[in-house]
Amino acid sequence: MKRSLGAKTLAMPSPVWLVGTYDTAGKPNLMTAAWGEICCSKPPCVAVSLRRATYSYAAIEARKAFTISIPSEHQARMADFVGIESGKDVDKYAVCRLAPVRSDLVDAPYVAETPLVLECRLLHTLEIGLHTLFVGEILDVKAEESVIGEKGKPDIEKVQPMIYDAAGQRYYGIGRTLGRAFCIGSGLNQE
Amino acid sequence: MKRSLGAKTLAMPSPVWLVGTYDTAGKPNLMTAAWGEICCSKPPCVAVSLRRATYSYAAIEARKAFTISIPSEHQARMADFVGIESGKDVDKYAVCRLAPVRSDLVDAPYVAETPLVLECRLLHTLEIGLHTLFVGEILDVKAEESVIGEKGKPDIEKVQPMIYDAAGQRYYGIGRTLGRAFCIGSGLNQE
Repeated sequence: MKRSLGAKTLAMPSPVWLVGTYDTAGKPNLMTAAWGEICCSKPPCVAVSLRRATYSYAAIEARKAFTISIPSEHQARMADFVGIESGKDVDKYAVCRLAPVRSDLVDAPYVAETPLVLECRLLHTLEIGLHTLFVGEILDVKAEESVIGEKGKPDIEKVQPMIYDAAGQRYYGIGRTLGRAFCIGSGLNQE
Repeated sequence: MKRSLGAKTLAMPSPVWLVGTYDTAGKPNLMTAAWGEICCSKPPCVAVSLRRATYSYAAIEARKAFTISIPSEHQARMADFVGIESGKDVDKYAVCRLAPVRSDLVDAPYVAETPLVLECRLLHTLEIGLHTLFVGEILDVKAEESVIGEKGKPDIEKVQPMIYDAAGQRYYGIGRTLGRAFCIGSGLNQE
């Protein structure tokens, strides 16, 4: 039996990503975003949804670029701090002892210390309400050598990305493997 | 040291959601989507990105509605099957022994057997490339009584949502708790 919980943002799971930008003065900024997704395969695109009130919003609008740095679960405290404070008040890179790396491809910095980063050129801006959805074309993905697995792709068990649970306001790690996609369900209609 | 992997959709983690629609004849359909996110808090909205070639694409366009049914990890084979087959060829509800429930709020069905469902009214359509991003306003969230935890919210450890790893093409469960959001990082600048 299902109970109605009302009109709420209770989907799960959400990612924990760090959005990197330069502000108008050229200072590197960083914010934590849980409202984000891959949103297109060709061209490869990622979407992140930000409130207009964030310091990063104006930076993306001005520079037409952002990066996504994907933290590992051992970086949970850092990722949470980056989500609490505003770049208006704090140099988050300095406090968290992170090195901003200037992208060669887009006008935005990424975090040297995270295992996986995406460099994105702003493609679309969609005003929805409290949040604005930014679609960025992924121009490159960079991964630490230590997290690259089979076939030259990042191994999720080495990246150890975080999950945000919006219902319980907690972070989680990745759990056990449930099986191969496009494989474990095949033949279900033969049974 | 980071290695460049090229322009690829290698962000992680992604969700595993089932998108419910009625086709033009009124037949309930279902597809699996990993490109999706919460994209706005007010109004509460969710985005899913679908290829135009999918059977569900035309259904969303026609009915201006869709649901998101969030499967639990024990439903991994079913979720994978729903992602492999097309509603053009197969009645996925029948094969998977799922009951489509007609939403009272929007012109779309949801899955009776999944622990958590979102009923959505189409708000925006953004053509990006191979994928189109649909933004739906969440009119209600419904949860099985058995997964509702503290404060009347769905407990992620009871829902046990799946994670899709696009890099390795595998599904994963939720792992260990890493700590409270807006809490574990506070005070990092005092250390």
